[in-house]
Amino acid sequence: MPPTNRSAAGQATPSVSAEALKRFATEIFVRAGMSEAHAGLVAEVLVWANLRGVDTHGVTRIPRYVDLIEAGDMNPKPAITVRTETAASVLIEADRAPGPVAMTTATTAAVRKAREAGIGLALVRATTHTAALGYYTLAAVREGMAAIALSASWPNMAYHGARAAGVSTSPISIAVPADGGPVVLDMATGVVSMGKLVQAKKAGEAIPAGWALDANGNPTTDPQAAQIPLPMAGPKGSGLALMIECITSLLVSNPLLAETLEGTLAGGRHRQNGLAIAIDVARFGDAAAFGREVSRLVAALKGLPVDPEVGEILVPGERGERTFAKRSREGIPVPPAVLDELHVLAKRLGATMFASS
Amino acid sequence: MPPTNRSAAGQATPSVSAEALKRFATEIFVRAGMSEAHAGLVAEVLVWANLRGVDTHGVTRIPRYVDLIEAGDMNPKPAITVRTETAASVLIEADRAPGPVAMTTATTAAVRKAREAGIGLALVRATTHTAALGYYTLAAVREGMAAIALSASWPNMAYHGARAAGVSTSPISIAVPADGGPVVLDMATGVVSMGKLVQAKKAGEAIPAGWALDANGNPTTDPQAAQIPLPMAGPKGSGLALMIECITSLLVSNPLLAETLEGTLAGGRHRQNGLAIAIDVARFGDAAAFGREVSRLVAALKGLPVDPEVGEILVPGERGERTFAKRSREGIPVPPAVLDELHVLAKRLGATMFASS
Repeated sequence: MPPTNRSAAGQATPSVSAEALKRFATEIFVRAGMSEAHAGLVAEVLVWANLRGVDTHGVTRIPRYVDLIEAGDMNPKPAITVRTETAASVLIEADRAPGPVAMTTATTAAVRKAREAGIGLALVRATTHTAALGYYTLAAVREGMAAIALSASWPNMAYHGARAAGVSTSPISIAVPADGGPVVLDMATGVVSMGKLVQAKKAGEAIPAGWALDANGNPTTDPQAAQIPLPMAGPKGSGLALMIECITSLLVSNPLLAETLEGTLAGGRHRQNGLAIAIDVARFGDAAAFGREVSRLVAALKGLPVDPEVGEILVPGERGERTFAKRSREGIPVPPAVLDELHVLAKRLGATMFASS
Repeated sequence: MPPTNRSAAGQATPSVSAEALKRFATEIFVRAGMSEAHAGLVAEVLVWANLRGVDTHGVTRIPRYVDLIEAGDMNPKPAITVRTETAASVLIEADRAPGPVAMTTATTAAVRKAREAGIGLALVRATTHTAALGYYTLAAVREGMAAIALSASWPNMAYHGARAAGVSTSPISIAVPADGGPVVLDMATGVVSMGKLVQAKKAGEAIPAGWALDANGNPTTDPQAAQIPLPMAGPKGSGLALMIECITSLLVSNPLLAETLEGTLAGGRHRQNGLAIAIDVARFGDAAAFGREVSRLVAALKGLPVDPEVGEILVPGERGERTFAKRSREGIPVPPAVLDELHVLAKRLGATMFASS
């Protein structure tokens, strides 16, 4: 029997197997209008995030995705087309496809182009929530690629120098193959993850100065009042987020930030754009030597004196990989509030609820 | 007569025209062994950094570059060759060329490839100090490109979780064309620029906690003791720096970090690698519309309520552009200590010293 955790409120947090969650999510998305193949892929990407410990991008999104479909923002039957194709790039018109469908299409295209041309670029126009970017860069890594993925979204983070949201917490993922398992960075451009803000809110613990603004744009240390995360390292984080909007949204002629900031009709809808780059490692040297060198570097870093305040020297993706192994064995903890919401959704759509322990 | 500033020590800081500094630097580099064309290019890139206000990457580097040549680390007469070429990429063997020469070669190649293939990648193997990356991304922008440049270097920044230098402050530049002038981000991955650390050291002002470690790896707020800058946003900054080493140095089979961390002979030398990516904006949409959209976004951000603690909403590169205009008119302030060092160097190499006011 898988272990049962207790939430802050003292309620038991049941564990659910990844397979059961995937089956459930697939059924829900099919009932919401997606094809079996798309539903399965979206379910796979969301549950993968849970397995890696990124619960903010996991099954808690299932009801949100259904909401987006019902609001007409996410298209469950998208006509994904190639708008532009060059020797090393494609611009994919995603037709408001679920993010995991559009980003997987993009990753496959970027890898194919990289195989032909050394580097491949896939731009994604007009998708929806792109979910955990590390899923796509790791998929490219399995094809022998070094990979970069970006996604652009609505303004939800303060722009440095402004007391209001101006840019998005736009995530960046970069991944490379390595002998000891891939190294995969997957980070947002905020000073702190939304997950940590939510945690502080739940725990009722004051947040450090410099993390967030309240709804009125004033700096706050009150976790309940915190609304707008601040960018990492001030102008660096918000500058990166601005450039991501430019090389993603503006390159595909689908501006997001300006529309929302100007209060246009389009700016009020849920819309995202994405970018995937693959670089074929074997075209520039010996792929086996590359994998060895990444692991050699990881070993050298792990040999440095440890900061006792951190306790361990980790490389990007390492903690996620550990959580993945643990949750693959023991199941994924799903908080009672999320379970309840999934129950209600299942009932409404006539889907079979999964078993939890 | 150009204005004269006063340094912290109370000494007058003379101003020198960009042209005079370029002529001087060119002569020095020719006397140190470079061709006239390479010397002029290196001078141009260093003085450009001064014009933009990035004095840490300006003429203060002239004596350092000559040292590197004399130590055999920088090759004043490099045989730059193409090691790999694909439809969308080149791997350039830089033969220890001065960074500005190698990175300019790379940028030109990336732009050419992007023109043919939509995106172009140029990898640079075995160069030296790459100087201010914004110079190269802006050069690509003038060709209608969105551009990214990275450079990898020796370990001079703490790795998150370690109490020692493990990665480099690897800079990232991203630039795009815009109607109101290009937007160009050029940032290092440290929590604070080396320039600010040097400033605090000169002013003798305590630095905030979380900026730096001392030589023994202990956190410090003493500007004199500060030796190792900390990464921005902890694991994010050092994670980015690690990934930059992987997709730059390891892709070109010229590891830098591991060599130094392991204390090998090669790891003790001055070596850098670089990467330039160009994306041809016009291949994916209307280039004029792109320029308008970037400027529209800039205007929307500038319309947000201003944080009184910052005082002004700026976009990446804007302050540099202002400094450029001012210093182009009024000259570049060169601190007396730098002037003295340049005097000594000029005398030793038999070069003509420039006039300062």
